[in-house]
Amino acid sequence: MKSKKIENAEENTLKVSQDIRIRFNETDALGIVWHGYYLHYFEDGREAFGRKYGISYLDLKAQGYVTPIIKSSCEHKLPLRYGEIATVETTFINTLAAKIIFKYKIMNAEGKTVCTGETVQVFVDDNNDLSLTFPSFFKAWKDSYKLI
Amino acid sequence: MKSKKIENAEENTLKVSQDIRIRFNETDALGIVWHGYYLHYFEDGREAFGRKYGISYLDLKAQGYVTPIIKSSCEHKLPLRYGEIATVETTFINTLAAKIIFKYKIMNAEGKTVCTGETVQVFVDDNNDLSLTFPSFFKAWKDSYKLI
Amino acid sequence: MKSKKIENAEENTLKVSQDIRIRFNETDALGIVWHGYYLHYFEDGREAFGRKYGISYLDLKAQGYVTPIIKSSCEHKLPLRYGEIATVETTFINTLAAKIIFKYKIMNAEGKTVCTGETVQVFVDDNNDLSLTFPSFFKAWKDSYKLI
Amino acid sequence: MKSKKIENAEENTLKVSQDIRIRFNETDALGIVWHGYYLHYFEDGREAFGRKYGISYLDLKAQGYVTPIIKSSCEHKLPLRYGEIATVETTFINTLAAKIIFKYKIMNAEGKTVCTGETVQVFVDDNNDLSLTFPSFFKAWKDSYKLI
Repeated sequence: MKSKKIENAEENTLKVSQDIRIRFNETDALGIVWHGYYLHYFEDGREAFGRKYGISYLDLKAQGYVTPIIKSSCEHKLPLRYGEIATVETTFINTLAAKIIFKYKIMNAEGKTVCTGETVQVFVDDNNDLSLTFPSFFKAWKDSYKLI
Repeated sequence: MKSKKIENAEENTLKVSQDIRIRFNETDALGIVWHGYYLHYFEDGREAFGRKYGISYLDLKAQGYVTPIIKSSCEHKLPLRYGEIATVETTFINTLAAKIIFKYKIMNAEGKTVCTGETVQVFVDDNNDLSLTFPSFFKAWKDSYKLI
Repeated sequence: MKSKKIENAEENTLKVSQDIRIRFNETDALGIVWHGYYLHYFEDGREAFGRKYGISYLDLKAQGYVTPIIKSSCEHKLPLRYGEIATVETTFINTLAAKIIFKYKIMNAEGKTVCTGETVQVFVDDNNDLSLTFPSFFKAWKDSYKLI
Repeated sequence: MKSKKIENAEENTLKVSQDIRIRFNETDALGIVWHGYYLHYFEDGREAFGRKYGISYLDLKAQGYVTPIIKSSCEHKLPLRYGEIATVETTFINTLAAKIIFKYKIMNAEGKTVCTGETVQVFVDDNNDLSLTFPSFFKAWKDSYKLI
């Protein structure tokens, strides 16, 4: 039983790493990336996740749903500068609520954590109605990855 | 006759001035506004023009048209820095072609020209077709300002 | 005693309201403001606060400090669309820690809350050292507003 | 003689192709990339060029120069949409003036030209003075590629 649980726990962790190159226009007069751009990097990570696991913006749209972000947060540990290559690690956080939650960790080339963050998305259908339960296609997606 | 012509020439010049405050996040690691943001300022000027003269994006949309930009250019004379208040002067350039042309001049608080530029827009209707002639509502708009 | 406390409580609330006009380029393919732009609006509010109360980015810099953002969060209730006029209400949150905390509330033209959020800043001096206590100029600033 | 000329002409064409993935946040309410973002793509192309040929922003800075953009232009033929992969082709345009000129061509996945453009940069040294002739390091760079 115990080993099964551990096995499940491992299966539950869907994660993607995506490299990003810091653009000159993302820096500000302090010479570092302006804090608001980290939400762009989170989006880069989230989309890389979507492409790998088949739940990108366009996949969701094909199912008749958009998933607007209702909450985001970002905690900064170290700055990033122009020209650096950083890595965004995006992890799917399983939840019983009708939401999509991602956690993000951005690391610099030395592997040090630059920032961490989280976004929460909801499901809105073609009639602009908020889903209070998981759409069936998303339930099927979760089942396919043994996310209960 | 001559005076009439001059009078017309004056009537033909539709122009709007709009103040903008330079945001911190518009600066780059050189401490000055990143060149790409001037297209944002041009948009601020163009929209101020649209509000004053009744041809804003929403006015055009209500008539069944969008007017995507097909050409833009920008010439920089002086930098702008965070905290400066600049003025965007937007001038409608009358043309016989089925286009909307604006010229822009951005001045700093001392009245010195910081940059100049131009955008060209075309008319695209609800069927996503390019208009080869002025839509009738736009012809009426031009007539109302004696723009021939 | 009680009335004094209430009086102090009121004096402690420093707040600024700033109108913003939603730009076309801040919308995304869903036709609403892309979530990341709310951090720009927070910056607009924070800067308006700084100008009113004398602790803008440039005021702090003149004192030898920059105040990078180490934490931000945003909670979305309603969307904003192109052309809307919204109001950013920025409130200074007094704290004993060597930090600057602001809370934000953005309301649409009907007065409905569109989003709320918070940012946390720290003090970094000319030597790039983090201040563990309030710089003396900031202590004096707090005293001048009876913020203990 | 003729063949030599042709050979030189070929050597003179320094060019780099860089793929870009269109981000969701680069689209606007029309569902297409907002025109101002093409200057970001040009920057992506210019930086890819700089990395390949050793004249990136950081290389120039190490030589004591920054190269602000004094002119840019963009001509749009077709829209780009979220999720598309486009290619930016950046070509160095040799000139006798103390300037760096690049031409850009962005193509969509079908190889169709989406937009073309140009940027012009000047050399500004550590004293914030404009160079009226090529800095010696840049002359050496040009010589190394047989650009006369």
